[in-house]
Amino acid sequence: MSIEEQTIKEYAVSYLLTAAECGPEQRMTPSLMVNRLIDVATLHANYLGIGYARLQADGLAWVLSRVSLEMKRWPSVGEEYALRTWVEGCNRLFSQRNMEITSVESGEVLGYARTIWMAIDIKRRVAGEIPSLDTLAQVVVEDRPCPIAPTPRLREPKGDDMHDTAYTFRYTDLDFNRHVNTVRYLELLIDQWPLAWYDSHSLVRLDMAFLHEALYPQSVTVTTATDADNPMRFTQQITGPDGPCMRAAFTWRPDEYHPVCD
Amino acid sequence: MSIEEQTIKEYAVSYLLTAAECGPEQRMTPSLMVNRLIDVATLHANYLGIGYARLQADGLAWVLSRVSLEMKRWPSVGEEYALRTWVEGCNRLFSQRNMEITSVESGEVLGYARTIWMAIDIKRRVAGEIPSLDTLAQVVVEDRPCPIAPTPRLREPKGDDMHDTAYTFRYTDLDFNRHVNTVRYLELLIDQWPLAWYDSHSLVRLDMAFLHEALYPQSVTVTTATDADNPMRFTQQITGPDGPCMRAAFTWRPDEYHPVCD
Repeated sequence: MSIEEQTIKEYAVSYLLTAAECGPEQRMTPSLMVNRLIDVATLHANYLGIGYARLQADGLAWVLSRVSLEMKRWPSVGEEYALRTWVEGCNRLFSQRNMEITSVESGEVLGYARTIWMAIDIKRRVAGEIPSLDTLAQVVVEDRPCPIAPTPRLREPKGDDMHDTAYTFRYTDLDFNRHVNTVRYLELLIDQWPLAWYDSHSLVRLDMAFLHEALYPQSVTVTTATDADNPMRFTQQITGPDGPCMRAAFTWRPDEYHPVCD
Repeated sequence: MSIEEQTIKEYAVSYLLTAAECGPEQRMTPSLMVNRLIDVATLHANYLGIGYARLQADGLAWVLSRVSLEMKRWPSVGEEYALRTWVEGCNRLFSQRNMEITSVESGEVLGYARTIWMAIDIKRRVAGEIPSLDTLAQVVVEDRPCPIAPTPRLREPKGDDMHDTAYTFRYTDLDFNRHVNTVRYLELLIDQWPLAWYDSHSLVRLDMAFLHEALYPQSVTVTTATDADNPMRFTQQITGPDGPCMRAAFTWRPDEYHPVCD
């Protein structure tokens, strides 16, 4: 990783996609991209002095509430890509942060992301008020709209082809906060499609809304259904003992996989 | 990550352990450490011109055959740690590469690793001969023994308390080579112990031997048994439709977990 550019209002980091990081289609995986979105948001917040360390002093932690990601093309093996982030808005409870993803050599825009962050009270496990709101307000970029639609209202999956699978959270699904990691939820959603689907489709858009934390060793149900209006859009829900943990939508396009090397 | 030192015979990289990378005990996870061992070996091989790109020209790829890791202490959140690697020996079929893991600020040795690498023929999925053996031979370090014991002969788990669990490999378990990723095997082994065990024990030594690749969507059995001579040592085997995929041994010590922040 290398720091491309740092200003108060915009923070950019570039990364090289190694073979070890690729999925079986020899390109970037959605879970690595969501990891990178979190990384660049964290680095910018740290740079502004409102990162995890600052929030921890008040017994708070940043948590991701919503993510939407739209990709024209996924980075391929050996490609250098950059993530550029800026804050679109904030209030006492939410901070909206956008990202632009580009290919470093050509400058080609590969995609965009929208994220919404909350502060949670670490002990009470409830939403807290974002501290240093004046710092955040100063860095809001008003004249740079993000070209992708905001996260839509995600509804419970319903329909004739709805199917459920069961999963029990394991030790390696847990993170620093001793709850299930954002990226492990995403992998659980990704695994609802077989390898053959990935070899013949590209993920165009991903929406996720986090509703309730899941803990070890809870068992959950993953429900997937095709959207009634769009056979390439699927809605998903992970439901635990206390109700829905998260909802998501995956939108695909047909895209034949051609191995880079075989 | 930053490159600490590059010589032909020794290559060192340092990393900062972020909160996002920690497990629930707020320290480095064994799976991240094995990832780092692979990273530093890859970087050194690339630096010597015998990396993945060189082998690919001959239709070969580096694969890990054996790993042994012994840790006095695992890096904790916010700690900077370094991995230093050197080649202990090589022949037509195997290259032996060791690593020393230190804490950057104090220089404290945290642990050591031994790895054994093979070249596989990508199309035929069998062992190949390592090319550029003269380059490897030139960098062998003869006067720096690795202080941990070599990987022992790992036997099939046996005993009164032997237990089996089933697992079916999923899409996200696959890597660039379209087979199950080393780190996913390790996570499957790690998940055989509950959270409470990790809160009261530290992993002291890890041994893994890879015997046969596993493919999607194979179902496997994970067998775990206590060593007859040592109640803190457990042997494991992952068995697929074509026989054992890998064998492992985990050795623990009691170690109460004290949260850094709660």
